[in-house]
Amino acid sequence: MLVILEPNVDESSEGYTEMWDMLHKLPNIQVRKHIVQGKQQVLTEIYLLGDTAKIDKAAVEQLPTVERVIRISEEYRILGRHKDGGRMIGFEYNGVTFDQDTLHVFAGLCAVDTPEHVEEMMQALSEHGQLCTRMGAYKPRTNPYSFQGHGRTCLSYVFELAGKYGIKVIAMEVTHENHIHEINACLEQTGHPTGILLQIGTRNTQNFELLKAVGRQDKFPVLLKRGFGITLSESLNAAEYLASEGNSRVIFCLRGMKTSFSDPHRNLVDFTHVPVVKRLTRMPVCIDPSHSVGSRELAPDGLSDIFHATAQGVISGCNMILVDFHPDPKTALVDGPQALLLEELPVFLEDIQIVRNAYIKRRKLSSRLN
Amino acid sequence: MLVILEPNVDESSEGYTEMWDMLHKLPNIQVRKHIVQGKQQVLTEIYLLGDTAKIDKAAVEQLPTVERVIRISEEYRILGRHKDGGRMIGFEYNGVTFDQDTLHVFAGLCAVDTPEHVEEMMQALSEHGQLCTRMGAYKPRTNPYSFQGHGRTCLSYVFELAGKYGIKVIAMEVTHENHIHEINACLEQTGHPTGILLQIGTRNTQNFELLKAVGRQDKFPVLLKRGFGITLSESLNAAEYLASEGNSRVIFCLRGMKTSFSDPHRNLVDFTHVPVVKRLTRMPVCIDPSHSVGSRELAPDGLSDIFHATAQGVISGCNMILVDFHPDPKTALVDGPQALLLEELPVFLEDIQIVRNAYIKRRKLSSRLN
Amino acid sequence: MLVILEPNVDESSEGYTEMWDMLHKLPNIQVRKHIVQGKQQVLTEIYLLGDTAKIDKAAVEQLPTVERVIRISEEYRILGRHKDGGRMIGFEYNGVTFDQDTLHVFAGLCAVDTPEHVEEMMQALSEHGQLCTRMGAYKPRTNPYSFQGHGRTCLSYVFELAGKYGIKVIAMEVTHENHIHEINACLEQTGHPTGILLQIGTRNTQNFELLKAVGRQDKFPVLLKRGFGITLSESLNAAEYLASEGNSRVIFCLRGMKTSFSDPHRNLVDFTHVPVVKRLTRMPVCIDPSHSVGSRELAPDGLSDIFHATAQGVISGCNMILVDFHPDPKTALVDGPQALLLEELPVFLEDIQIVRNAYIKRRKLSSRLN
Amino acid sequence: MLVILEPNVDESSEGYTEMWDMLHKLPNIQVRKHIVQGKQQVLTEIYLLGDTAKIDKAAVEQLPTVERVIRISEEYRILGRHKDGGRMIGFEYNGVTFDQDTLHVFAGLCAVDTPEHVEEMMQALSEHGQLCTRMGAYKPRTNPYSFQGHGRTCLSYVFELAGKYGIKVIAMEVTHENHIHEINACLEQTGHPTGILLQIGTRNTQNFELLKAVGRQDKFPVLLKRGFGITLSESLNAAEYLASEGNSRVIFCLRGMKTSFSDPHRNLVDFTHVPVVKRLTRMPVCIDPSHSVGSRELAPDGLSDIFHATAQGVISGCNMILVDFHPDPKTALVDGPQALLLEELPVFLEDIQIVRNAYIKRRKLSSRLN
Repeated sequence: MLVILEPNVDESSEGYTEMWDMLHKLPNIQVRKHIVQGKQQVLTEIYLLGDTAKIDKAAVEQLPTVERVIRISEEYRILGRHKDGGRMIGFEYNGVTFDQDTLHVFAGLCAVDTPEHVEEMMQALSEHGQLCTRMGAYKPRTNPYSFQGHGRTCLSYVFELAGKYGIKVIAMEVTHENHIHEINACLEQTGHPTGILLQIGTRNTQNFELLKAVGRQDKFPVLLKRGFGITLSESLNAAEYLASEGNSRVIFCLRGMKTSFSDPHRNLVDFTHVPVVKRLTRMPVCIDPSHSVGSRELAPDGLSDIFHATAQGVISGCNMILVDFHPDPKTALVDGPQALLLEELPVFLEDIQIVRNAYIKRRKLSSRLN
Repeated sequence: MLVILEPNVDESSEGYTEMWDMLHKLPNIQVRKHIVQGKQQVLTEIYLLGDTAKIDKAAVEQLPTVERVIRISEEYRILGRHKDGGRMIGFEYNGVTFDQDTLHVFAGLCAVDTPEHVEEMMQALSEHGQLCTRMGAYKPRTNPYSFQGHGRTCLSYVFELAGKYGIKVIAMEVTHENHIHEINACLEQTGHPTGILLQIGTRNTQNFELLKAVGRQDKFPVLLKRGFGITLSESLNAAEYLASEGNSRVIFCLRGMKTSFSDPHRNLVDFTHVPVVKRLTRMPVCIDPSHSVGSRELAPDGLSDIFHATAQGVISGCNMILVDFHPDPKTALVDGPQALLLEELPVFLEDIQIVRNAYIKRRKLSSRLN
Repeated sequence: MLVILEPNVDESSEGYTEMWDMLHKLPNIQVRKHIVQGKQQVLTEIYLLGDTAKIDKAAVEQLPTVERVIRISEEYRILGRHKDGGRMIGFEYNGVTFDQDTLHVFAGLCAVDTPEHVEEMMQALSEHGQLCTRMGAYKPRTNPYSFQGHGRTCLSYVFELAGKYGIKVIAMEVTHENHIHEINACLEQTGHPTGILLQIGTRNTQNFELLKAVGRQDKFPVLLKRGFGITLSESLNAAEYLASEGNSRVIFCLRGMKTSFSDPHRNLVDFTHVPVVKRLTRMPVCIDPSHSVGSRELAPDGLSDIFHATAQGVISGCNMILVDFHPDPKTALVDGPQALLLEELPVFLEDIQIVRNAYIKRRKLSSRLN
Repeated sequence: MLVILEPNVDESSEGYTEMWDMLHKLPNIQVRKHIVQGKQQVLTEIYLLGDTAKIDKAAVEQLPTVERVIRISEEYRILGRHKDGGRMIGFEYNGVTFDQDTLHVFAGLCAVDTPEHVEEMMQALSEHGQLCTRMGAYKPRTNPYSFQGHGRTCLSYVFELAGKYGIKVIAMEVTHENHIHEINACLEQTGHPTGILLQIGTRNTQNFELLKAVGRQDKFPVLLKRGFGITLSESLNAAEYLASEGNSRVIFCLRGMKTSFSDPHRNLVDFTHVPVVKRLTRMPVCIDPSHSVGSRELAPDGLSDIFHATAQGVISGCNMILVDFHPDPKTALVDGPQALLLEELPVFLEDIQIVRNAYIKRRKLSSRLN
């Protein structure tokens, strides 16, 4: 059961204390408080766990400082919608708003290789008005003898170049809790020139210890990739791990499913689940067309499969696009064949704009349906 | 090796005879002729099969009546593109053009139940300017004790109602070669009020005997559904069966893949393969959002997942949409939960138009890319 | 609801007539009779379909000639066990008994190529006391330009050689109902030198029209292969199609599932489902190690993966083994890489015997468990 | 390229020094030393990585202290067989030998719940002569609100009871590197009453950071479970991560694959890959029938599906069996439905013995084949 308090409630008020004491007197019930800092206000949610069937909902709603009470299902307690249209969705981070209505492009390098490539990338983004990018420093690789990313050593120049070119948020994969500390230390040291969205990759979707570590910190929001070999429900439960530890600033990323049916694509694109994730949870939904498709092949209409996959996510209302670019894909250390070229960036962004406009028109249509 | 003759070549001409004789003198080579009736012209293609590596391509190009010669790969000999942009794509049937540029909606009943429902459906289509529909008479069912469709008994009223409401093409599944004869006989008997696109379902994608039977007739074009449990390449080879028997008027239909990753959808939507099929073959590409998604659930933006799946196919340039509607889904005998309501039809068509317009804009973008 | 009559019931008796009339008076109930010819006796089962919930089971049991009545679930009405240990299992055909206790090896040619190879195979089988074989005349192939089997033309020499070497049953795939007639005609013409087990391949598991045609004839028993891309339940329903049309002499064949997880094997071997199929249905269970594994690779213990897969089926109590051999695999027209060599036959049979003996010991153990 | 030195080579000898210096003079080559402590001797392997194509193999073989040199493929450098029958296989730990010939049963509790259940389990194992068990203290769970295991708090009584009942090796899952330290500290504190085989679960097969941490320590051998949604090759590469960090005492565990084809089993049993893993690598191969099957259902022959799955692994030569038992499955906190009962233990062990004997007979057969 979820008790939503009045916005900006004062925890030292008499009403709050009375309510808090009453909840703790409920038999066989654990009380867990969860605070969300929104753009305009602070929201306090109290989860009642345990033998909640016997609780009188109306009585709880009468307690001081309580705004409303909703019964929640077992699954996705914190991140779920629970058919309550009024729950807060999304968050702001470093001046950028992430929710189920906005759309941000995170074009960038799958793996950081040289400062020159990072700068070329950042500059191109800046010239096209972009505030976000992706930069891979820690790379999990199937083969232990493959290049594993430059790790900590590249962080300072990546962060400083981001600052130079006005990039507000970098999506950066972490594979070990130490990476969070390394990133944080380097941000401190370089004077916080940018912000970091911690990315958890598809091989770690059910690395529950990593999820707990990332969920326990509140400095950085999280981009969680869907597991490529598990059900959607299992992946959403992984997101709930983050929230259950305290961090509900989570974006969920679709990136294709591993099955032989995907061929000639690397994965079977699953962006039809964009509306599903939005229906089941309050998370903004990201798509990763690069890892889904895995090649730059062109259709007879002159557009590449990556452009088409991106368009499919956008036409269904996705909120973020994670996409690989590279100034010189031939020399890329990881996943070169799927990186788009820098000269494609303006057309790619224009293509997204065309489709996004169509999505906005479609959304208006719905008023005539229901 | 493929020898394309001049359009409208005269088979009784001297040049033709000379060419024909020369080809038959090639050692260890089988000669197979394939004639395609296009909108404007008749195209004759001659396939040379066997030990073609030793054939001198230039010499064959010098033969009279030969326009050009292309070396073709083993796969998809007739339906493949073979990187030859000039091969004819598509066909006309009963006044409707099917190719990789057009877009047709086939909204209709998954399973015919009553004449009243058929008429309500046809009338609604007619009111919204539609020329095509889907109507299921023969239904393959997993359980032998389930309703198997009204079969032959419903054909005459379906055809007559189609004629009454100006429907030019009905997509209708066949599961046995006898059904072709039954359909043909009933069309004769009712005076050809409409045309039929023979549909082969996903359980029969590798029913090679049915493919051969359908491929041997040239009255009806074919809509072949992708197999839900085989690779794309295997399904495209199944299409090639139709062509190898003589019928290359084939539309290929994506309908989602069977995997537990699809949940909560019935199948994992595979419409990102629209551009892939267009790149590999000359077939128009259809999508079936109803069987892919399997439910009418709404996203928070007010649009149902079926609308979103449809939009994903259209934004990537699909050429046909097969979609279930029903005047009263609660009473539908097959797949009621996925049928859209008749009152949704105008908004559905308008939604498609919005997205189709966006696709056309996108296609123009590509000129700036390549 | 299933009404089992006394064995060898006399249909012209007064009791039978009375019973029959009473059943037909039940409101909203269809009555369907099913006769099974066992080794010792004829069994008559009567299925009551429709609104059976209201039928008084005890009253039906009181009717003359009725032995007992069982309520059956919706699934696998005829072939299912319905938790009734007493239902008859298996059948006899051409002197060979097929049930859930026996074990028969069907070693032979995946595709018939020459009379010499057929004779070498039959002779080797005869020398090792085998009564059964597999011989492929009609071959469904993914690519339309691949060899499709010699078809009807090879039947007479195959049948005659079987007769010459004392082979009682040949498993032979059919892909079209005409093949049944061709086989039957050739058997007539050659004087019935052998018997045929009609095999339905994995691509036709849900070819319901073929299932109906094979189910409507009662000359030949059927070997139905599991569909490689559908659930077990869907495949068992396909078997039920055969029975629902009248032919319940069905053997169910496991042959591996199509998934990328199988690699380096061709399919992911599913023989752990042997006990499952025996629990859910009354069918004897066959395994096909050749198509499952797809290669002759050896383990470090000197045994090939095909031997190991076979052993896994036998140790779990399978009742039939379908396995590819070839006198000269290099020249085999279909699936040469997976065919065992004739010189391996005696060791293969001895290996099976070792494992079968172990299974029989295991089965005795179970008495101490339950 | 792999340089195998003479057994028990003296690293302070002149020959060793000469060889070592020569290898370091090779251009563009990294030299990596790997020491394996076998039962009888110490084996030193030197891996040459990089531009090895240009190295003169014969010349390296002439260097002092070198026994032989083998060219190795890219995959599974350390754990692979590389078609070299002479490479050492297996290891000894706490008095128990693990290799590709032995067979050990690890029956025990999936999740430790109470000291009483642990003691009942250990006592039963001891009474039946068992030296090994499984005990789960750290449990990764899909749902964040499920029971996550007693963790560190149960270690001391588990270890002491193991000591009391003569258990030499406990397989125990770890999900975080801290767990290794906790286990080690508790073993120190309780006086090393038993040994631990660190188990890495299927959700962590590609948790490369955990693999590296476990690979860097040399106190404990490792049991790595196959990933349920990745290819076999990807899982074997994960094992290679452990070895590449220094720990090649790795047992590889098959545990079934996640696919809808498994139904009614929890996973599709993959034990036909036992001979494959033995062919590709030098690792002993474990099977986990409990998680594969997921229920205690009985076949008509009176044996449960778990018994059958176990028999399938053993008949193919598996080297270890990880299996869930529980004194009172109804009260088990995790996976109760798949736990066997304590009273089944003796029959289970006898069943294994029957099948193991059959496997040993089969292995002898192979001498007549090759």
